[in-house]
Amino acid sequence: VKDFPRTIEWVGGRDGFVRLIDQTQLPGALHYRDCHEVEEVWEAIRTLRVRGAPAIGIAAAMGVVLGVRTAGGDRAALDRKLEEVISYLATSRPTAVNLFWALGRMRNCFERSALVGEPLQDCFLHEALAIQEEDQQMCRAIGEAGAPLIPDGGGVLTHCNAGALATGGIGTALAVLYVAAEQGRRFLVFADETRPLLQGARLTTWELQQAGLDVTVLCDGTAAQVMKEGRVQLVLVGADRIAANGDTANKIGTYGVAVLARAHDIPFYVAAPSSTFDLRLSTGDQIPIEQRDAREVTHGFGRQTAPVGVAVYNPAFDVTPHHFITGIITERGVVRPVNEGAIRTRLATAFSQS
Amino acid sequence: VKDFPRTIEWVGGRDGFVRLIDQTQLPGALHYRDCHEVEEVWEAIRTLRVRGAPAIGIAAAMGVVLGVRTAGGDRAALDRKLEEVISYLATSRPTAVNLFWALGRMRNCFERSALVGEPLQDCFLHEALAIQEEDQQMCRAIGEAGAPLIPDGGGVLTHCNAGALATGGIGTALAVLYVAAEQGRRFLVFADETRPLLQGARLTTWELQQAGLDVTVLCDGTAAQVMKEGRVQLVLVGADRIAANGDTANKIGTYGVAVLARAHDIPFYVAAPSSTFDLRLSTGDQIPIEQRDAREVTHGFGRQTAPVGVAVYNPAFDVTPHHFITGIITERGVVRPVNEGAIRTRLATAFSQS
Repeated sequence: VKDFPRTIEWVGGRDGFVRLIDQTQLPGALHYRDCHEVEEVWEAIRTLRVRGAPAIGIAAAMGVVLGVRTAGGDRAALDRKLEEVISYLATSRPTAVNLFWALGRMRNCFERSALVGEPLQDCFLHEALAIQEEDQQMCRAIGEAGAPLIPDGGGVLTHCNAGALATGGIGTALAVLYVAAEQGRRFLVFADETRPLLQGARLTTWELQQAGLDVTVLCDGTAAQVMKEGRVQLVLVGADRIAANGDTANKIGTYGVAVLARAHDIPFYVAAPSSTFDLRLSTGDQIPIEQRDAREVTHGFGRQTAPVGVAVYNPAFDVTPHHFITGIITERGVVRPVNEGAIRTRLATAFSQS
Repeated sequence: VKDFPRTIEWVGGRDGFVRLIDQTQLPGALHYRDCHEVEEVWEAIRTLRVRGAPAIGIAAAMGVVLGVRTAGGDRAALDRKLEEVISYLATSRPTAVNLFWALGRMRNCFERSALVGEPLQDCFLHEALAIQEEDQQMCRAIGEAGAPLIPDGGGVLTHCNAGALATGGIGTALAVLYVAAEQGRRFLVFADETRPLLQGARLTTWELQQAGLDVTVLCDGTAAQVMKEGRVQLVLVGADRIAANGDTANKIGTYGVAVLARAHDIPFYVAAPSSTFDLRLSTGDQIPIEQRDAREVTHGFGRQTAPVGVAVYNPAFDVTPHHFITGIITERGVVRPVNEGAIRTRLATAFSQS
């Protein structure tokens, strides 16, 4: 994991740019994409070149740096420009709250100072890099908090990709696996391929392979079977937004996996940094769910695999009610059982960055 | 449905051949494939050009006609040749019992007579056509038995393809929908795309579209979400083999759908002709499950979507325990509740072919 290529980084100083792995090209090719304009960052988020809630947050923060650096004028003019850039980036994808959280931090960064010009640009860049740096530390802390849950000699099933490719560090759900492996635990990983965009087959397998972990890819419909065969002792997934009561939005298919885990008496854990919690929402019903293009389903593999004109239902996320979640692994420790009181208490504890 | 192209047919007389829709080309193209040799039938079954338990049975029976027609000699020599052809066809796919059932009928056809030469060839052809004709009538009867279960104004979810393309008639699970539609019931159909080979997206949508039914395709991981949204009032699937106690092998993913249906209090029905029951097996644990090539998962439709060398688990079927099955719709009526006594009683009742 240590030598893992960086999912997203800022190259250079104040006049630099965003460099990110184009994840739509994986696992066939490891291509980087450089974004010099905020529009390129927006496009990269929208088309899932960069994806994963924490990574989206970092990309958005860096997008703000790009979007406002040519703006001149007084504080009022800068304020308007900042608002325009933030509103624009907020339209890229609706579900992952880390995006809005990161944009909020950039807004606060402006509010806190009276800066203009290059000092303000430096302030923005500093904040974006801080978000990335903190995410990296949170990933490590999530991994350490969750590693004791990994069953030595057992099997862990994951859905989608909540790994290094989804964050500024070693991942959320996959961080737990990386740290457990570092600690000498041995286990098998089952990766749902995760239709329609196959983040499990393309990304999770790729990064686990790079890290030398033992991973087997499954069609999503096979998850129930491996559970029935007794080969899964833990389910571990990431999150795109978590409501105050613990209801969790994550990649479509997660809710079904949670129901299956419950039916097979398998613990189901969510791993996410505190930036993924949205305490303004009392339940998951209030989380906006992105609907994506039908072609992701009908033209998934390059060739058309459903008849012309067929109706498609393609929500990008679903919401797993909190009562299906055994615990939520955060950088501040594990929330268990999952309820609003436990979440608020846990998030209020200090996070001492290493 | 009436004008539906025939999934499989025998063209000509004793010297004729098998013509089948090459289902690997759907929905992009409606191509027919003619098989003049038994090896071509074996290949068509193995590669899923023809698939679906009842259709596999018909194909195998017709394959026997092709395989033995050039054989000469006395009854002992014919017996050896027949055994060779049957053993060969039996290796094409292991799970659908209809294959072995149809081969058994061809064997019985031989045993019952003392024929050789052209009269024996005619006898074989007659038996193969009878299997097809009976299947067509069974499909219709299954549809009529099941149609009253379809919730008027509701939603029905199906997995894989148990339709006209899987049988010699109008299907098993989909026959129920076709007859319900004929009777004026209105309902929405949700078709799981059914990875890895997308029989739901490619075949079920295609034939329901042809029949004018309202169908929406979903990624397999989305089934739980549409259930949670209250849009599914019935789950209806086919079967590849049903043990004496009602445990049912069907396309991988079916078991998970059954667990999800139970968790959402949605009735889960299997539709299958009596040829799909294997009363020699007391439970589903004894059903052999075909493991298929990893490339079906990693190279779905032209392009490689998982890293080189990744481990893959790709069983073609899973087994749904009988206690998850609300009822089994057969041509002799509905088995409900599902247990060995009810199955044996139902299968012993007369089937009066129309």
